[in-house]
Amino acid sequence: MNDIKTRIKNEKLGPAFIKGTFGLEKEGLRVTPTGDLALTNHPAIFGNRSFHPYIQTDFSESQLELITPPVESIDELYNWLAAIHDVTERSLPKDEYIWPMSMPGALPEEAQISVAKLDNQEDVAYRIHLAEKYGKKKQMVSGIHYNFELDAGFLNALYQGQSSIKEYSQFKSEVYMKLAKNFLRYRWVLTYLFGASPTVASNFYQADQEPLKDYVRSIRGSHYGYVNTKEIQVSFESLESYVEDIEELVNKGALSEEKEFYSAVRLRGGKRNRDLLTDGIHYLEFRMFDFNPYAAFGMTKEDMKFIHLFLMSLVWMDKIATVEEIEVGNLMNEKTALEHPNTVSNFQQEAIRLVDNMLEMLQSCEFSTEMKELVIQAKAQILDPQKTISARLIKDIAKVGSFKELGMKLSRQYKEEAFLKPYSLRGFTSMELSTQLLMFDAIQKGVEVGILDASEQFLKLRHLDHIEYVKNANMTSKDQYIAPLIMENKTVTKKVLAGAGYKVPAGEEYQNAREAKGAYWNYAGKGIVVKPKSTNFGVGISIFKDGPSREDYELAIDFAFKEDKAILVEEFITGTEYRFFVIGDAVKAIMLRMPANVVGNGEQTIEALVKEKNKDPLRGTDHLAPLELIQLGEIEQLMLKEQGYTIQSIPTKGTIVYLRENSNISTGGDSFDYTDTIDDSYKQAAIDMTKALGAVVCGVDLIIPDYTKPSTKTNPGYAVIEANFNPAMHMHTFPYKGQGRRLTMAVLDMLFPELGIF
Amino acid sequence: MNDIKTRIKNEKLGPAFIKGTFGLEKEGLRVTPTGDLALTNHPAIFGNRSFHPYIQTDFSESQLELITPPVESIDELYNWLAAIHDVTERSLPKDEYIWPMSMPGALPEEAQISVAKLDNQEDVAYRIHLAEKYGKKKQMVSGIHYNFELDAGFLNALYQGQSSIKEYSQFKSEVYMKLAKNFLRYRWVLTYLFGASPTVASNFYQADQEPLKDYVRSIRGSHYGYVNTKEIQVSFESLESYVEDIEELVNKGALSEEKEFYSAVRLRGGKRNRDLLTDGIHYLEFRMFDFNPYAAFGMTKEDMKFIHLFLMSLVWMDKIATVEEIEVGNLMNEKTALEHPNTVSNFQQEAIRLVDNMLEMLQSCEFSTEMKELVIQAKAQILDPQKTISARLIKDIAKVGSFKELGMKLSRQYKEEAFLKPYSLRGFTSMELSTQLLMFDAIQKGVEVGILDASEQFLKLRHLDHIEYVKNANMTSKDQYIAPLIMENKTVTKKVLAGAGYKVPAGEEYQNAREAKGAYWNYAGKGIVVKPKSTNFGVGISIFKDGPSREDYELAIDFAFKEDKAILVEEFITGTEYRFFVIGDAVKAIMLRMPANVVGNGEQTIEALVKEKNKDPLRGTDHLAPLELIQLGEIEQLMLKEQGYTIQSIPTKGTIVYLRENSNISTGGDSFDYTDTIDDSYKQAAIDMTKALGAVVCGVDLIIPDYTKPSTKTNPGYAVIEANFNPAMHMHTFPYKGQGRRLTMAVLDMLFPELGIF
Repeated sequence: MNDIKTRIKNEKLGPAFIKGTFGLEKEGLRVTPTGDLALTNHPAIFGNRSFHPYIQTDFSESQLELITPPVESIDELYNWLAAIHDVTERSLPKDEYIWPMSMPGALPEEAQISVAKLDNQEDVAYRIHLAEKYGKKKQMVSGIHYNFELDAGFLNALYQGQSSIKEYSQFKSEVYMKLAKNFLRYRWVLTYLFGASPTVASNFYQADQEPLKDYVRSIRGSHYGYVNTKEIQVSFESLESYVEDIEELVNKGALSEEKEFYSAVRLRGGKRNRDLLTDGIHYLEFRMFDFNPYAAFGMTKEDMKFIHLFLMSLVWMDKIATVEEIEVGNLMNEKTALEHPNTVSNFQQEAIRLVDNMLEMLQSCEFSTEMKELVIQAKAQILDPQKTISARLIKDIAKVGSFKELGMKLSRQYKEEAFLKPYSLRGFTSMELSTQLLMFDAIQKGVEVGILDASEQFLKLRHLDHIEYVKNANMTSKDQYIAPLIMENKTVTKKVLAGAGYKVPAGEEYQNAREAKGAYWNYAGKGIVVKPKSTNFGVGISIFKDGPSREDYELAIDFAFKEDKAILVEEFITGTEYRFFVIGDAVKAIMLRMPANVVGNGEQTIEALVKEKNKDPLRGTDHLAPLELIQLGEIEQLMLKEQGYTIQSIPTKGTIVYLRENSNISTGGDSFDYTDTIDDSYKQAAIDMTKALGAVVCGVDLIIPDYTKPSTKTNPGYAVIEANFNPAMHMHTFPYKGQGRRLTMAVLDMLFPELGIF
Repeated sequence: MNDIKTRIKNEKLGPAFIKGTFGLEKEGLRVTPTGDLALTNHPAIFGNRSFHPYIQTDFSESQLELITPPVESIDELYNWLAAIHDVTERSLPKDEYIWPMSMPGALPEEAQISVAKLDNQEDVAYRIHLAEKYGKKKQMVSGIHYNFELDAGFLNALYQGQSSIKEYSQFKSEVYMKLAKNFLRYRWVLTYLFGASPTVASNFYQADQEPLKDYVRSIRGSHYGYVNTKEIQVSFESLESYVEDIEELVNKGALSEEKEFYSAVRLRGGKRNRDLLTDGIHYLEFRMFDFNPYAAFGMTKEDMKFIHLFLMSLVWMDKIATVEEIEVGNLMNEKTALEHPNTVSNFQQEAIRLVDNMLEMLQSCEFSTEMKELVIQAKAQILDPQKTISARLIKDIAKVGSFKELGMKLSRQYKEEAFLKPYSLRGFTSMELSTQLLMFDAIQKGVEVGILDASEQFLKLRHLDHIEYVKNANMTSKDQYIAPLIMENKTVTKKVLAGAGYKVPAGEEYQNAREAKGAYWNYAGKGIVVKPKSTNFGVGISIFKDGPSREDYELAIDFAFKEDKAILVEEFITGTEYRFFVIGDAVKAIMLRMPANVVGNGEQTIEALVKEKNKDPLRGTDHLAPLELIQLGEIEQLMLKEQGYTIQSIPTKGTIVYLRENSNISTGGDSFDYTDTIDDSYKQAAIDMTKALGAVVCGVDLIIPDYTKPSTKTNPGYAVIEANFNPAMHMHTFPYKGQGRRLTMAVLDMLFPELGIF
């Protein structure tokens, strides 16, 4: 164990050493706008706590516990914490907040604090026991548990290169024991750096306790925090002593369960501690961290990375702390926790030695300069206590007026931030909006989310034994494979829909101009559209609403053939185009799209009107928002010119000025929800068409002249223009006008009907 | 009706005029190798006659009736006739043939001729009635019915431009009546050109008939053919007279049913003739055509096109034949049918006027020169009777020895031709082989095939009300959409399979060389493969079966990064790769692929051995055959050089010389069937993996060191390399060695279990 450093250096194991698996559990009180404990039930919107992997309750009904999945990098860890936070903040009642401090800012009478209303009665009984033993108020103390597992390949490489320990599981345990012991010896440095609970609501203290008179670094980190009673003594001398001591305490009733042992580090693996003796330690749980109130999610990414490096340095160092040294460490931690934030540490020299040990490790392993920077910042805080979080906190308490006020100021700020982009999920903003929304909903309802391929929007969703894979938020196991293949091919789609009895625009494809012109006999006197086979922007299209002359028809054919090798001549259908979003047996949303436009007010120029309209927070660029900013580029200015405007024109009040011909949202178009407006007969038609295509999720585009007039089989009031197998969802959820429709939740319900979401 | 020509000219309706819908029904006797009537049952391989759309029986159990679907061009019509013929020829017992003549070459006693054993007892009763009334032997006369419908757009355009007839359906009927009348008047020309039944088995004639003493143009076209008795007189004066005359004949019992009226042309539409009066005539059925014995399928494409033009010219001409003229036409036809094939037509001048009328029509409508050529050839036959089919036939009868001998010579030839490329389907050879095989199977079993998009291999299959869409022969409604999405993404596939507990090669992806090299610690001492992320031809791959030195490893990393921006380092798995083809709950085929190779015989050069091996009819080019020709290009010669050979080397007996490193069939590899060889445990694993991927059809590639040793969950004997959602099928059906597996039939069975194919 003492030669790990040498082994890592010689065998260049640095890249393996820095790997690991990480997880966080973060408690947090729900509070009212005044900063008082919310006495409401855990919100029903989070579904069932009996399985929820992300959003749980800890001790009390008001104490959230947010849990990240185990992940293999700090970046991912931070993303998950952000995402779970985002979901929680946006799902809480309007008048509830997450208290950003580890110590409560206000506490009701004990009787008003309700233990978590869990289904499992053993869990409830355990909480009642704790309440009686430690008092309910102490249970309100909240913090972050940091789970860390070394890379198996790294441990294996170390194991292979030695012969003194025979069993791999034993070898692994020895490494973790070294880390745990050194952690207990040196954790005081982390209390110095990250301690962030300088004060607490005055009624927190127990009757037999002398309340603290001045600010400290960490009340929670001191004996005032949530700690075991003095009689609970567990030796970290060896894994065996750890297991046996706890078992004895449980046997004699000093602890009700093994998990009642609250150590700053817990050895994890197996269901019972005794399993550690056979399987070895799997990972360590570091339980000492106060919330960083200046971090929206309780811990910054830099904090997480520094802690990781600190833990590594405890493995890296030559020494292994003895039980006596651990005892010293405990005393140094208590001392540090109760120091005034503005004072220089009593043990500054040791702290400097520790960060220098870290720097040496970084140097030897050739780790990045970014990491070095983190250690240098920590060193600066060791040299200057004013730079610590706790010192900053007491300054801000003074500035704002009170601990409670400061807490609420930060709470409100974090909640506001969570609503800045209600259509996206922090942590995963590089994914498509629809996927972000689906992940949001899955996290909210407690469906486990795995990202199989981020750039491909490929998710694995799991609820208990039920696994579903999802691509691009609505490509799932529910659709038949043939459905998207049909829809990918416009000609085949038309044939299938027409064959099943639905009205499609009559039309013909032509491969050469001679043939197309020869077919004039078929179009004389009829409303038609001549267009290149594949076009998205209206180029090469001619529309003859009342039938073309032969001359005009032939010109239109030549015009279209300039754009493509094949053209279509289709029946012209009068009416408005609507997107019907079908999921299974229901139309979940209907949308009308309008080309980019502004409405005149008789005062402002078009340029100013566009600027004004673009202030809508739903508008962004590059599909990162549900609506796109309206541009004033070449195409828009040309469009204005054709209407006799410039961008400096001032349209009269009420005049709609269009800046685009096409109604795509991607070119600044507006979206209007029509779900509740259109006659049901059209919805049924869209549902039936979806079934005819073998699909379950489908975006059906219908042209409808009059949506109030019912459509019938014999006299359909629509023509179907297109069917889409991966229809956009976010535009329905966040329309320009009208009610939003949470389609991702409907997809989740389709995949996991057993959750009973609706 | 008389101004149609002018209307077409003035309104440039030529392109509409030439459109139409076409269908053929072709009867044909099954005969033994001696040319005698096969007395076996209709082959069970064709499934159930109660719904078969393509392969039916006509009067007798030995009389096939092949039916094309209605199609919109002669090219398609010919393709369908070819395909249905191909299926029939290849499905008949080895010792049965399709008699290529309209008149039988031999006939058994009447008692031995069995009427078709149909399920529907009414149909059987009708045949028994015919047998009694006309004699069974007459029923053995076979021919082709040619169905023709004018384009609806064309008829509509004509209708719109006139005012004398109010109802569209009536107008349409008038056009068809003109065509039918003129046809009856002038069909003798077709008898002259296409008459091809100069003689018949001597025992064909009835007791009261004087047998013909010499060859004629068309026995079948004369009163010796299958015609009604003299009392059956139906007037074509008007549609009403036609309908009423037939009804009266049925009422008084002269006809048992309306369909017993055997006219050279039948007015079609509706279930009963009377429907024609309300809905109008839908199309015409021309029933006069003898088989062209020189056409493998009974009629050449040129014949079909000429007949179409001839029919058009009857619409085009100014006149409409009167009932008296029709009577003249009937007499002229009888006269023509019974003329000696070598004699000049009695009515040559009229024939010339008719083809000149056709040429004028082609000219006016600006139709293609190819069409003109057809008419000019017909004119040549009119001028020189030696050029007619019937004249050619009597020459060949003399040459071969007898009518029966000639028939069998042609029968054998056509059957052989059908087996030349047993892996393809004539008429549809431009489609993928797998699609051709699936179409073959569907046609054989009577599943209706619609081609929605030929270039996209998109089929619509129908059995009664059950519709299935199929793309690329095995992309269907049965697979979940997510399955191909998973398989398209190799990383996701690995994650899903590993997550479900299957053994995949361990591996890691690296985006830069520094990171990859840093991971050496993980690979030291292990068998690994270093490769560019996307490669198909082995470039940039390094294999270290026993673990690389650090230096070699780093060189391999740089080598791989020369080929791609990302590389994979994967566990090296020893063993042989097999393709498992899974459909649902069964592995339907297992294949081993070997790189292109030849086996030395101590005598021939490698070049000669390749030439020899390439003679295999299963080898072709461009995926048009199940195996590809072995090349001797740059890559192959380089491969030989590395082994110390040139193409002129003579390998010793039994030496296998590989010409390729990769085992792809597309580069000349060999395929070996292993379906019955490999232990069932591997098959179960492949089936389970397919289910884990959400797939029903899947090609699973397993590497197996020893396929006789069972694989278990805890100790899998395989590693799964890849899963394919559209696995090739034809290579299993036609392997280089071993039993072929008809996978397309299994797909058909999966789609239509109600057919009970297996």
